[in-house]
Order: sequence, then structure tokens, then C-alpha cells
Amino acid sequence: MAISKNINRLLGYRSLLVKMQDLGFETIYSYNLGKEAGVSPEQVRKDFSQFGIKGKKKGGYNVIELLFTINNIFRKDELQNVILVGMGNIGHSLTKYRGFKNRMIKIVATFDIDPSKYRKKCPVPCYPMEELEAVVTDLDVKTAIVSVPDSAVQEVCDQLIAAGILGILSFAPTNIKVPPHITINNISISHELESLIYQTLHVKGD
Amino acid sequence: MAISKNINRLLGYRSLLVKMQDLGFETIYSYNLGKEAGVSPEQVRKDFSQFGIKGKKKGGYNVIELLFTINNIFRKDELQNVILVGMGNIGHSLTKYRGFKNRMIKIVATFDIDPSKYRKKCPVPCYPMEELEAVVTDLDVKTAIVSVPDSAVQEVCDQLIAAGILGILSFAPTNIKVPPHITINNISISHELESLIYQTLHVKGD
Repeated sequence: MAISKNINRLLGYRSLLVKMQDLGFETIYSYNLGKEAGVSPEQVRKDFSQFGIKGKKKGGYNVIELLFTINNIFRKDELQNVILVGMGNIGHSLTKYRGFKNRMIKIVATFDIDPSKYRKKCPVPCYPMEELEAVVTDLDVKTAIVSVPDSAVQEVCDQLIAAGILGILSFAPTNIKVPPHITINNISISHELESLIYQTLHVKGD
Repeated sequence: MAISKNINRLLGYRSLLVKMQDLGFETIYSYNLGKEAGVSPEQVRKDFSQFGIKGKKKGGYNVIELLFTINNIFRKDELQNVILVGMGNIGHSLTKYRGFKNRMIKIVATFDIDPSKYRKKCPVPCYPMEELEAVVTDLDVKTAIVSVPDSAVQEVCDQLIAAGILGILSFAPTNIKVPPHITINNISISHELESLIYQTLHVKGD
């Protein structure tokens, strides 16, 4: 989990650096970056050093070089192929999500159990679950998004892992059991919203 | 942040309890619940005690009573109204998301800058941004979902706060600046996916 937080902060710095580059900044200090990201300058330097990123001798970082280095860490030189299981509302909207393109992420295939969704000749084809293993092997994909109903999540994840997937992004509020070599990131929109409503009602509303 | 994690764990326990109830369990022990949730039994008891939840004298919790208590904490007896700004792909899919209904969450109004999206007479109406303050006041909503392009997020959040919103769920990878009395939860699908791809490539792929 520590590694994951670190990675998320690095991705946050990158978003800020893109903004700063657009605003014409050439040099950035850990102090500025920390202030914008809501962490201490020490944390910024610690995170950078953990990923082998060094500052300039006179202090500060060159914005373009820093972006280049971070993008290299995330292998932004090559498109990262991802598959998606569950072409419901959320799944379908993700196949159209523009934010992935800038980040060199591409959903190359989708899967569903509903035959009315199967389409093979289109930019993002939709296959039956029976073809999962063949497609994953064929496209050499290691990462999957799962946007199926909660009751089906564990079974789908088991199938994905059996097909060779190593990383899963799940949208279910369910705790999924996976072997130790599998990475699972969980986004529960309902939980985030419920937690927010609770805080709005109780914590800050007092 | 400590509070928020605690709330998220409580929401996680609730999901597990619903499952256990469906499976016919009547009593549950912190040990079982912790094992399913991936935390220690001590953590479960600590979380429960922090929300004033007590176990039975002979140990364990009655599943139905426990669910009732947790639902009360989250005020699941009354529908929680939420608004949404940004009727792009993700925003639109959230208005159709079935998972909210079970959790007593209802998106009561949406907003966009694109006039082609305005609809007043439908289950989830879409209004121009100019009507934000009037609608928020009228419906007495305190929570908003923001699914607008990154470049517009800060401006939209400022408008929401000015209109009386206290809690914001944002889908932008951007760090948003809000006054201390505002709660902001952030879901960056791109960051989660990039972090996952990184871990799949580096950490576990070694």
C-alpha cells in the first residue's frame, strides 16, 4: 500500500507539472510543488528520490526534464493496453473516456455476458466471456477494468487471473480475494459518496 | 483523513454483512469480519467502538442488528439528495447507475454548459450552470458530484461552494483548493489505472 500511495503522489505531481508547463514555468521547486499538491517539500523530495529523480545543483527541477523523467517511469512512450469486463453504464462510458488517451492508455477489448453487446468489428470490440483467455493471450494484456455487478465481481476476477491478468481495477464495493502476485485497485463510487455524505452531515456540519 | 478511512472501512463491513445476511448468517464475530475485510479483529472492534457499536456479552454481533445500526449511522432511513455537474460520458452513466438506489442516494439534478443537454421535465433534469444556486437552495442539497473536464474543475467547485455545497466528489486528477469547511473526495480513474499498470509492470512483474 505504501508503494501505491507514493505512485499516486507522483501521478499528482505530474498533473501539476503539466499545468505549470502550460503556464510557462521552466523551473519548479519542491516547495511550490508540495504546496500545490498539499504535501510538505520534504515529502516531494523523498518521493522523487525514491524514483531516482534528482534536482539541479542550484536547487529546483527543470519542468520539462522532470515531466520527461516521470513519463518514462510510467512508460508513457508506449501505449498501455487494457481490457474491460462489464459493458453496463459505467463500463460503456469508460470506453468513451477521453482522459485515457492523453495518458497513453487504451481499452483494446471489452467483454460481457449479454450477446446483444457483442461487436467484433469496431474500434473497441466486445466479446463473450468465453473468448477472454484467447484475447488476453493474443493481445498480451496484463491489466483489466472490472465494471460488473457486485455479485459477479469475484467470479470475473478469478476468470481474469486464470487468463493471465496481473492487475485489476474494480468498481465494486466488494472486497475481492486474489493471490498475492495480483494487484487490485478498488474504486467504489458509492462508498466515496456515502463517506462524503456522512462527513457533510456529521463531521463538518456540527 | 483518519475519519474518512474509518468510514470507508465501516462501509466495507456493511457490504460484507449484507452478503452474510443473504447467506443466512445470524451472528458474526470480529474475527470473521476482519478476515473478509482484510483487517485485524482488533481493528474491526476499534472501528465499531468508535461509532458506538457494541458486541453481545457472549461475543459476536447479531448480523441484522449490526446492519440496522450501521445503516442508522449513515442515515439510510432517508434518501440523500445529490447533484451532478458535467453530463459527459462519466456523468451521464452515473445518473443511470443502479448502485445508488440501494444505498438511498439519488441524483436529483444535473448541470452542464451545453444547452443541448438541458432537460427540465425528466426524472433527472439537466439545468444550465446559471441555475445552480437556485436549484441547490430549492432542493436543499449539500453534496455534489463533479465530472467536468480537468481544466474546469476548480471553477466549478468554486461555484458549487458559493451555492452552498459542503461535500464534493470529484473525478479529476487535479488537486482542488477548497476552504477548510468543505469536504472533497477525489476519484481519479486515470491515476488508479496508471498506478495499477505501473505496479503490474514493475513491482510484481520483477
